[in-house]
Amino acid sequence: MEGEPTLRLRIFDLNCWAIRYLSRRRQERVRLIGDTLRQDGFDLVLLQEVWSEQDYSELKVKLASCYPFSHYFRSGVIGSGLCVFSKFPILDTLLYQYSLNGYPYMLQHGDWFCGKSVGLPGSRAGVTAPLLSPSLQLHAEYCRDKDAYLPHRLVQAWELAQFIRHTSKAADVVLLGGDLNMHPEDVGIRLLRGWTGLRDAFAEAMHFEGCKNGCTLVPDNCFTNNSELLPFPLGIRIDYILYKAISSFTVKCEELKTTTGRAPGRDIPFSDHEAVMATLHIQRQGQPAGATLGTSDPALADVVTEARTEVAAGLRAARRQRYSTGRMAVLALLLLLLQAAAALGTLAGLGTEQPFPKLSFCLLAFLALGVLVLATGLHLFHTMEVKKLHGTEDQMGMVLRALQERP
Amino acid sequence: MEGEPTLRLRIFDLNCWAIRYLSRRRQERVRLIGDTLRQDGFDLVLLQEVWSEQDYSELKVKLASCYPFSHYFRSGVIGSGLCVFSKFPILDTLLYQYSLNGYPYMLQHGDWFCGKSVGLPGSRAGVTAPLLSPSLQLHAEYCRDKDAYLPHRLVQAWELAQFIRHTSKAADVVLLGGDLNMHPEDVGIRLLRGWTGLRDAFAEAMHFEGCKNGCTLVPDNCFTNNSELLPFPLGIRIDYILYKAISSFTVKCEELKTTTGRAPGRDIPFSDHEAVMATLHIQRQGQPAGATLGTSDPALADVVTEARTEVAAGLRAARRQRYSTGRMAVLALLLLLLQAAAALGTLAGLGTEQPFPKLSFCLLAFLALGVLVLATGLHLFHTMEVKKLHGTEDQMGMVLRALQERP
Repeated sequence: MEGEPTLRLRIFDLNCWAIRYLSRRRQERVRLIGDTLRQDGFDLVLLQEVWSEQDYSELKVKLASCYPFSHYFRSGVIGSGLCVFSKFPILDTLLYQYSLNGYPYMLQHGDWFCGKSVGLPGSRAGVTAPLLSPSLQLHAEYCRDKDAYLPHRLVQAWELAQFIRHTSKAADVVLLGGDLNMHPEDVGIRLLRGWTGLRDAFAEAMHFEGCKNGCTLVPDNCFTNNSELLPFPLGIRIDYILYKAISSFTVKCEELKTTTGRAPGRDIPFSDHEAVMATLHIQRQGQPAGATLGTSDPALADVVTEARTEVAAGLRAARRQRYSTGRMAVLALLLLLLQAAAALGTLAGLGTEQPFPKLSFCLLAFLALGVLVLATGLHLFHTMEVKKLHGTEDQMGMVLRALQERP
Repeated sequence: MEGEPTLRLRIFDLNCWAIRYLSRRRQERVRLIGDTLRQDGFDLVLLQEVWSEQDYSELKVKLASCYPFSHYFRSGVIGSGLCVFSKFPILDTLLYQYSLNGYPYMLQHGDWFCGKSVGLPGSRAGVTAPLLSPSLQLHAEYCRDKDAYLPHRLVQAWELAQFIRHTSKAADVVLLGGDLNMHPEDVGIRLLRGWTGLRDAFAEAMHFEGCKNGCTLVPDNCFTNNSELLPFPLGIRIDYILYKAISSFTVKCEELKTTTGRAPGRDIPFSDHEAVMATLHIQRQGQPAGATLGTSDPALADVVTEARTEVAAGLRAARRQRYSTGRMAVLALLLLLLQAAAALGTLAGLGTEQPFPKLSFCLLAFLALGVLVLATGLHLFHTMEVKKLHGTEDQMGMVLRALQERP
């Protein structure tokens, strides 16, 4: 092993919170992020929530000399918000959009419109290793006690794990950076780590510097909504850098840093999230280590079971909503038909006089039509939701059977 | 190479055209398909357009003894229609839903509701090879001369090719069976084959038996809409079995068969498509053949350029539609605001009398509201379409640059 070439890889990961017209001091912060990245010379930069393509273009121009390769992932109505800057050539990219991502009618939680995705750039780092470094963001958690989006986030975590398992087989090293919107002990994180074998840079780092417990949403950050952090006075950790070596390589995390409520040497932070910076050592081993897809951890079956129970609860809720929206649509249709019959009856001279004034009759018909269209749309949406939750439950069941049959 | 174990793999692929209430003699045909599959003992069965989960369940029960492993892929409103039956264990599955799949308002072309996808079961065939065998269906072609869906189908072909490239790296053999809805010389097929290195079982088969030119939509089939086949009196070939060996294996197509307008020994066909049946020989080589991802064919750059031109044309059309739906929404909003101002004016007693009768005023307001909602929805949809077409154009450009830089 001694004497084999070693690659020292410096990675920068940040949820930039750069929403046009909504994020405070956006342009100033994006400029600051660009300046810092240009000065500090990382090898790989994974950014999330760069919602404006113009911000990406400006960063691209500014960083062209030190990060000659970059990619912006497009999806959804607004975009995926994901972009990658790299010192090494990006050979190829693939975007996987999660099949479930919240509800279009929850306008105040804009997740549905974002087309949340995992973007996969495949690059070749120096002479060493084909590298897969997905950048991603999962559905936000808006209320921890009554988390209506948990099944969606679990489906996303599962799809992400499956995506990584299936795409990483020929890579030497997999790096994953992003805002997972999950606490370290949450079932989604345990599922993702257990099923892919990814290691948490914070837990493995030989040297750590930054916010206590590696938190990335902290009360010291002036953009943080402190009421959200009331149950967690130290902050929470929801931004991660995860990694694993697949073939004849070993990866070690030499150092992990986070910013601490403000950008280094400035009085404002980069974003409402803290940046995560890791220094990894990648070394070729003499012997191929063998594929380490998944873990043989006996606790994995428990984690999959726990996640499957949550998905099943989500499936029951989605079925109830599919039923109630379907019933609403049928009722609206019946009302419309009744009105049509009454109108026809009046026209044919069956009744002597119309029982309602014309205006209210007309208003009621439009109301019924509106309800019909809306309820039908929602019914279709919840039907898709049921299909996906059911499909995920099935897949998890298949994996559970395989895990239980394994000696 | 001699003396190495050989696997003889028999594959059955069929677009079943099993749409509840719409497909003619559906139940009879599904029973017939089940009977044939049970008798003939294939190793792997890839079915498309099994839209009813009940049909799948019946097939599953009937085939349990000879195909102990099966999977049904769930997506979209109606489902993906994809299912797989296998003699070998299915270790894992992954479903990739294409990001573009027609328009929700084209109700007569139901593609949008189907959630067209590629389903990827990973299985282990005997002692030999991890096998990836995606089953899939791409967007239908409704009018060849003026094919409005060509850019969508090209995005799907591109996503399919990328999906296969990224997921197949550790497989020994990749098999792909399905209804590609493209003629063999179409740019989408050339793109898919060129960019993945997949070989066409029909072109490679040592022995062929079936419809002339391997056609799978033929005038002899009593369910075929003959007016569609007028420009192609012999029929067209749109169902394919494609394959490639990745690592230390070779694959040869010993035999390819299609049904010829009716099921063997019966007077009705399985479906409006012909079934495709291939016998493949998979043999381990002494030396690893090396990954053959992509081809070094110099014509590949031309194919990608051609596809990119079509996608760019689709992008221009999508931008025009995004603009016109946006304008329509703004006009509707203006009309609504004008009406609101007029109503407020009347209420405030500014005008002496309302210029319109109440009923027409009210009807106009509802009309404007309806147009606003519809146009906004369409605008969002076309915005997503623009993002995806733009993203695909970008990816193709990146690949083109890499191809041109390659010596």
